[in-house]
Amino acid sequence: MLILVINSGSSSLKYQLINCVDRTVLAKGNCERIGIEDPLFKHEDNNGYSIKEPRDMKTHGDAVSIILETLLDPEHPTIGSLDEISAVGHRVVHGGPYFSEPVVVNEETKEAIRKCFDWCPLHNRANLLGIEVCEELMPGIPQVAVFDTAFHQSMPPEAYMYGIPYEYYEKHGVRRYGFHGTSHDYVARRAAQMTKHDPKTYRLITCHLGNGASFAAIKGGKCIDTSMGLTPLEGIMMGTRCGSIDPAIALFMARIGNYTPDEVDDILNKESGVLAISGVSSDFRDVQDAAAQGNERAQLAIDMFCYQAAKILGSYIAAMGGIETIVFTAGIGENDDIVRKYICDKISYRGLEIDEEKNKSRGKEVVLSTENSTIEVFVIPTNEEMAIAVQTAEVLHIGSCACDY
Amino acid sequence: MLILVINSGSSSLKYQLINCVDRTVLAKGNCERIGIEDPLFKHEDNNGYSIKEPRDMKTHGDAVSIILETLLDPEHPTIGSLDEISAVGHRVVHGGPYFSEPVVVNEETKEAIRKCFDWCPLHNRANLLGIEVCEELMPGIPQVAVFDTAFHQSMPPEAYMYGIPYEYYEKHGVRRYGFHGTSHDYVARRAAQMTKHDPKTYRLITCHLGNGASFAAIKGGKCIDTSMGLTPLEGIMMGTRCGSIDPAIALFMARIGNYTPDEVDDILNKESGVLAISGVSSDFRDVQDAAAQGNERAQLAIDMFCYQAAKILGSYIAAMGGIETIVFTAGIGENDDIVRKYICDKISYRGLEIDEEKNKSRGKEVVLSTENSTIEVFVIPTNEEMAIAVQTAEVLHIGSCACDY
Repeated sequence: MLILVINSGSSSLKYQLINCVDRTVLAKGNCERIGIEDPLFKHEDNNGYSIKEPRDMKTHGDAVSIILETLLDPEHPTIGSLDEISAVGHRVVHGGPYFSEPVVVNEETKEAIRKCFDWCPLHNRANLLGIEVCEELMPGIPQVAVFDTAFHQSMPPEAYMYGIPYEYYEKHGVRRYGFHGTSHDYVARRAAQMTKHDPKTYRLITCHLGNGASFAAIKGGKCIDTSMGLTPLEGIMMGTRCGSIDPAIALFMARIGNYTPDEVDDILNKESGVLAISGVSSDFRDVQDAAAQGNERAQLAIDMFCYQAAKILGSYIAAMGGIETIVFTAGIGENDDIVRKYICDKISYRGLEIDEEKNKSRGKEVVLSTENSTIEVFVIPTNEEMAIAVQTAEVLHIGSCACDY
Repeated sequence: MLILVINSGSSSLKYQLINCVDRTVLAKGNCERIGIEDPLFKHEDNNGYSIKEPRDMKTHGDAVSIILETLLDPEHPTIGSLDEISAVGHRVVHGGPYFSEPVVVNEETKEAIRKCFDWCPLHNRANLLGIEVCEELMPGIPQVAVFDTAFHQSMPPEAYMYGIPYEYYEKHGVRRYGFHGTSHDYVARRAAQMTKHDPKTYRLITCHLGNGASFAAIKGGKCIDTSMGLTPLEGIMMGTRCGSIDPAIALFMARIGNYTPDEVDDILNKESGVLAISGVSSDFRDVQDAAAQGNERAQLAIDMFCYQAAKILGSYIAAMGGIETIVFTAGIGENDDIVRKYICDKISYRGLEIDEEKNKSRGKEVVLSTENSTIEVFVIPTNEEMAIAVQTAEVLHIGSCACDY
């Protein structure tokens, strides 16, 4: 039973064709620079066949047409007919207050996705475009929307409300939504399989540390707090995002630079964070290299990132009255032993202890904590595409994979 | 040895005449509505004499003249001559990166206070005006500036830097400064007298919970982190301030309301927080009353305030690797037993335990924690005027009160 997973961006479209029963990826790729100059198509299947070449892609429709043609290519067939695809699962960034789980796409769904444009215009427009193109090119095949925000809808009001005039909540839906929900959910379910603690009362903090970074406090499988907010700008400092700052700073920047709100938004989302502090890169690997060579601003960026991470962990430990497990995932979480050690050392006052040998492992599932540690520490590689495929199958009640992952 | 303490606002000027040796307040009062209609003068001395009457006060100069005349009033003399006043201590809100301790005012000091106008225009202008008026009307008497930010200057860079383009720090001094420093310092020094822990390694969190509210993480007498930021807007939700929110919300508000940065600043500073959520009042006493009568939004405001407070405590416990003491101070911290209990219960996972009988006390110094509690909890009434008086005397090396308070 095959699910095509689509992650449609404003000028790119990533895809994976996943067999949901045996959890294999049959083919995957990316259409880059859609509608702009030098568009590029990348594709590879699990038989070792791969493509990386310029293709004419003026629209997202062109991109999906190329993907489907490639999957059906008689010389390198991944599938023999489109009918073999049971459903398409779409990543949708913002589900607002409308979606607490994945849904089959209909007119109502699309209208609700449009209603979220105000909070996340770029992402949601691109996500909807991907859905509409697939509806047109794959008639009769169910389309499912899987929302980055859905997992966090279980938060209580004291965690999701902001202390601003109430009409912003009532009329404009301004509240904490949180993102990376598919990833947090995925690694939390896996952690629940790895631990011996009772799933009903199990408390863990999932740390999705990538170019975007967020934390979720999870109790009995339900998210009770998360660090991203109305938008993915809030929380810890990230690759190019500022994270939480005095909100007066955004206004200070607009005032002294004579910037529009959109211009400040751009600076805080694209020219800030680790890139801005280090002056080196938004990529933590480059920043770690620079710090190792004595670059003080690179070291400062690492210190800030880890210090802010430790503070969020501390705040969620208080929110839940203690925890059983910390999970690291995503690019930095799965690979950066220095960051993991810094953060874990900061929580050592709770009796947390990690095995430094095990901490050297990269990109693999591993238990970092020692036998004596009072808190378990897991590294669990995330797989958002697989999670979207499984959730897509679940919502359609198809196949035999309606299980936990 | 007498110190006149001045807290000069944009349209008000509060004062206390303090005997710094025996820690008594000889007289105190407030000039309200300076330069606007219906100005009002309030005064009382420690002999029971009091005034509350309209006075013509067009300028801050008029206000200080009235104060000095009143103190010298032959019928109700507090002092016989201005020479009896050894110095004037001024509260100055923002000292930027320039001041880590109180200083005697000279031209250089005033220039540095002006340099902070960008970050805190209203407060600092009014504070400087108060200094200039006193220089003119009290020639030869030393003027001392005591800064709300000074105590927090010991923070390390990972706590005070924001993840925004570096030139905002280098060129515009955008960083965390923190406020209420005089109060945090005052209650921390008192706590150090009350505890048996070694002052060199003593770790405590001071919670200044009033209409403005902030937290300080203090290790060995030095502030290592605080919740307010470049401005007093950051941190926990307050009476009318939003506290920490997704910075994108400030820009969202500007965009959809077509507001200027100053207009958004006003909404977030004056129309937000407990007032906005409860819809009742910015005063916690009113909000508690409404909640007790079943007002759900009032209850939500209390829950948000306490939840955010507990998260900040948790984050500072992680930042310091544990704590010995929590101190509650200011209006809510000294009086609101419901808030104190909610916050302490949230930290009970650390072995913190309070005596519910002792928690009923209001406005008094009291040890709330039980014998068994692993963390001490103190209520210590703050006294910023006394702290300013003592620090003023200290910096001038006058009198015998250059001691801790």
